[in-house]
Amino acid sequence: MTNNQLTDSGQLRHFLTIEGLKKPLLTEIMDRAEQFSSISNRQVKKVPLLRGKTIMNLFFENSTRTRTTFELAAKRLSADVMSLNISTSATTKGESLLDTLHNLEAMHTDLFVVRHNQSGAAEFIAQHVAPHVSVINAGDGCHAHPTQAMLDMFTIRRHKQHFPDLSVAIVGDILHSRVARSQIQALATLGVGEIRVIGPKTLLPTNCQSLGVHVYHDMENGLADVDVVIMLRLQHERMQGALLPSAREYFNSYGLTEDKLQRAKPDAIVMHPGPINRGIEIASSVADGPQSVILEQVTHGIAIRMAVMSMALGAQSEQHETHS
Amino acid sequence: MTNNQLTDSGQLRHFLTIEGLKKPLLTEIMDRAEQFSSISNRQVKKVPLLRGKTIMNLFFENSTRTRTTFELAAKRLSADVMSLNISTSATTKGESLLDTLHNLEAMHTDLFVVRHNQSGAAEFIAQHVAPHVSVINAGDGCHAHPTQAMLDMFTIRRHKQHFPDLSVAIVGDILHSRVARSQIQALATLGVGEIRVIGPKTLLPTNCQSLGVHVYHDMENGLADVDVVIMLRLQHERMQGALLPSAREYFNSYGLTEDKLQRAKPDAIVMHPGPINRGIEIASSVADGPQSVILEQVTHGIAIRMAVMSMALGAQSEQHETHS
Amino acid sequence: MTNNQLTDSGQLRHFLTIEGLKKPLLTEIMDRAEQFSSISNRQVKKVPLLRGKTIMNLFFENSTRTRTTFELAAKRLSADVMSLNISTSATTKGESLLDTLHNLEAMHTDLFVVRHNQSGAAEFIAQHVAPHVSVINAGDGCHAHPTQAMLDMFTIRRHKQHFPDLSVAIVGDILHSRVARSQIQALATLGVGEIRVIGPKTLLPTNCQSLGVHVYHDMENGLADVDVVIMLRLQHERMQGALLPSAREYFNSYGLTEDKLQRAKPDAIVMHPGPINRGIEIASSVADGPQSVILEQVTHGIAIRMAVMSMALGAQSEQHETHS
Repeated sequence: MTNNQLTDSGQLRHFLTIEGLKKPLLTEIMDRAEQFSSISNRQVKKVPLLRGKTIMNLFFENSTRTRTTFELAAKRLSADVMSLNISTSATTKGESLLDTLHNLEAMHTDLFVVRHNQSGAAEFIAQHVAPHVSVINAGDGCHAHPTQAMLDMFTIRRHKQHFPDLSVAIVGDILHSRVARSQIQALATLGVGEIRVIGPKTLLPTNCQSLGVHVYHDMENGLADVDVVIMLRLQHERMQGALLPSAREYFNSYGLTEDKLQRAKPDAIVMHPGPINRGIEIASSVADGPQSVILEQVTHGIAIRMAVMSMALGAQSEQHETHS
Repeated sequence: MTNNQLTDSGQLRHFLTIEGLKKPLLTEIMDRAEQFSSISNRQVKKVPLLRGKTIMNLFFENSTRTRTTFELAAKRLSADVMSLNISTSATTKGESLLDTLHNLEAMHTDLFVVRHNQSGAAEFIAQHVAPHVSVINAGDGCHAHPTQAMLDMFTIRRHKQHFPDLSVAIVGDILHSRVARSQIQALATLGVGEIRVIGPKTLLPTNCQSLGVHVYHDMENGLADVDVVIMLRLQHERMQGALLPSAREYFNSYGLTEDKLQRAKPDAIVMHPGPINRGIEIASSVADGPQSVILEQVTHGIAIRMAVMSMALGAQSEQHETHS
Repeated sequence: MTNNQLTDSGQLRHFLTIEGLKKPLLTEIMDRAEQFSSISNRQVKKVPLLRGKTIMNLFFENSTRTRTTFELAAKRLSADVMSLNISTSATTKGESLLDTLHNLEAMHTDLFVVRHNQSGAAEFIAQHVAPHVSVINAGDGCHAHPTQAMLDMFTIRRHKQHFPDLSVAIVGDILHSRVARSQIQALATLGVGEIRVIGPKTLLPTNCQSLGVHVYHDMENGLADVDVVIMLRLQHERMQGALLPSAREYFNSYGLTEDKLQRAKPDAIVMHPGPINRGIEIASSVADGPQSVILEQVTHGIAIRMAVMSMALGAQSEQHETHS
């Protein structure tokens, strides 16, 4: 499955999951993002790299924030970008997903950015697109969210540099989180010294040990001496479901407060993929505090998406003849 | 009515209907589309032809696919394009259609692309716009869908070249189809040897003979030795209405299967304006089969819309003084 | 509060309200708009002034027309522009307004255009954005609509030139109108000779005299010899509320008819911010008549918004180092 993402010469064609990608490729993504990061600080935040390319955001699941970052990344690369909210439009005439896809493809789309509430959707689409088309997974069900994981790695590298020396804790609903899954894979691939997951038993996968992570049910122990704390968003359906006693109790046990954060290293950074639930998984004083890099993550998200888009479309031009 | 579309010197100003247009103009549209078609295969799928022009998609009837093709065509011509879903927005404050129109016009819009569920809407709008504004009909009620007809003609020309030698069959709900109406007019204008319509009596117009077409109620007879089979989409309201017995019976009589297709010439092409109802008007094996050119039609739709847009706006600049 | 809009050197950074701005700045906005106005008549209606800048339209209150003018203005300045309908999207995950804002800001947004149904919303946002970000108020509750007021001033200057010689009447629901509030401030700042407000007691603020305006409850007296008649839109909720007897009676008393207009100077111009309620606050014969400049206002709205956007972003670059 994972090799589907690469061309024969090992370049990124699709970006569906971190799983199966090697460290040099992840490093290349971050290095490329570093270049784009400086563009965003210029007066003219735009490069002509993808001029004349067509990028379609296919959002089967609504996410204004993620859609916005992909649109902005595309525009700053000078691509033409369109966002289609598929659930409410294209399929209302009863057309199948694949028919919709092939139609959009026939319009000479170069890249689909896919967000879907079903695990495997981006992979499925990537299997069915024409050879000249790339697919980026912008989150599929509980499976993967690889651009989120890479922007997190990029943020960590900006602050901490050498991955093998680090201890990183991920806190919350690991079980249902595509973000956590992709983060763990990325951290492992980059050789992070210690990966910990912290949460109640009901929200941790049963195969945690086999993922090579250390499991903690007690947050204070789990945070001891870590360099990086990654908080996950608690989904509202979990709060109302049988998996948790109450939001207040959850906050008492697993919400990140200034007190609990003191268990981590003094220079530990606090991350969150957003949007944050203040007072549920994180205290406002921590979210807005000096160790928080949450808004930096958002900034880096643009650079990472520019990097992945340009790499995927660069791999295309490598494979196909240039006519212009 | 039809001459309204042309400037005094015979150039295309609006594109409302095929009716009344002469063969040289239809050929010019296809020739122009041929040029744009090659652009879509380039690395940089974009020309600066309409840079600084403003195109407004006014969709009073929802159609993601058609809207997307017009947006893409506009972007690839480097125009600024905005899409307004009018039903849900501008008229909610109780403003009349003409007031909305004149307001958008006052923003120096150059071209309106209009989709409306009432026949004559695009014509009505064209009658009321200022001299510097063009209108393209993207489908009005049961009346006309001229860009669809021209992309179909373009697709036929790509495969079959000489129109007078051809026999073309249109199958399905001719009576309610703006697509069929525009196709028949285009085929006739281009001098197609034989035009056939195939369908149950309840779905054929009573004046078919006067349109110069041959009428068949039996599909196998109707398809005999044709070069082109154009299937129409069966609207869901027809399936539920009194005009048809059932979707299954319709498929048995008028659905295109591999068996029925064997009555056509061996190199016949199969077309459909999309979105297709698999198993209702067409079998999947035919839609995805070697004779299907359905996705090519989608591709050519971009080139045809680029052609018509650039011609309409070229006719404008011919009529008006250039200040830049 | 009002000085928040200006940089230390007196340049426009935000544009939140007319209140507190000096005459030279309002004149500068109009002079700048005059330059942009000529661009809109060119073949290529576009300048590269804001290329690489990112503008976000944050519409918490739906307004297709205003949003469209801001989008067009941004595109004609070559900025990248995105429109977010916030009520229906970003805050659905329970995120606070400020969190949404800081996230969008972290994406290197340069300018927010804010429309909100609560008075003070744009001001609130301006207080919380980072130093490199500008905010333009596109209408907040009953408070202010400064770009509308400036396009009105620009329209008046186009027709009447010397403000001190003018008598201007504003007719209708002054009490609830952010447009009227901003207009009165702009007219006063520009030194208009006489400002009159005309309306029923229930729709006039109690402090009218202190605003330096003359109050009329009788329209025929109020219109006597004025140079400019500005009609306000009567909101539907007023028609149904207790403040007014009925729409018909309102029209009889305060609707602008050809008869009533004869009380004004023969060359008086008629203005309206749109969308108009025909037969409620204005007769169609007047709205479409020779003295109406209503559609000109729409046209000038683009130029004014281009002027304000470019000034706000120019002030930014003055304050910040240029890296490109």
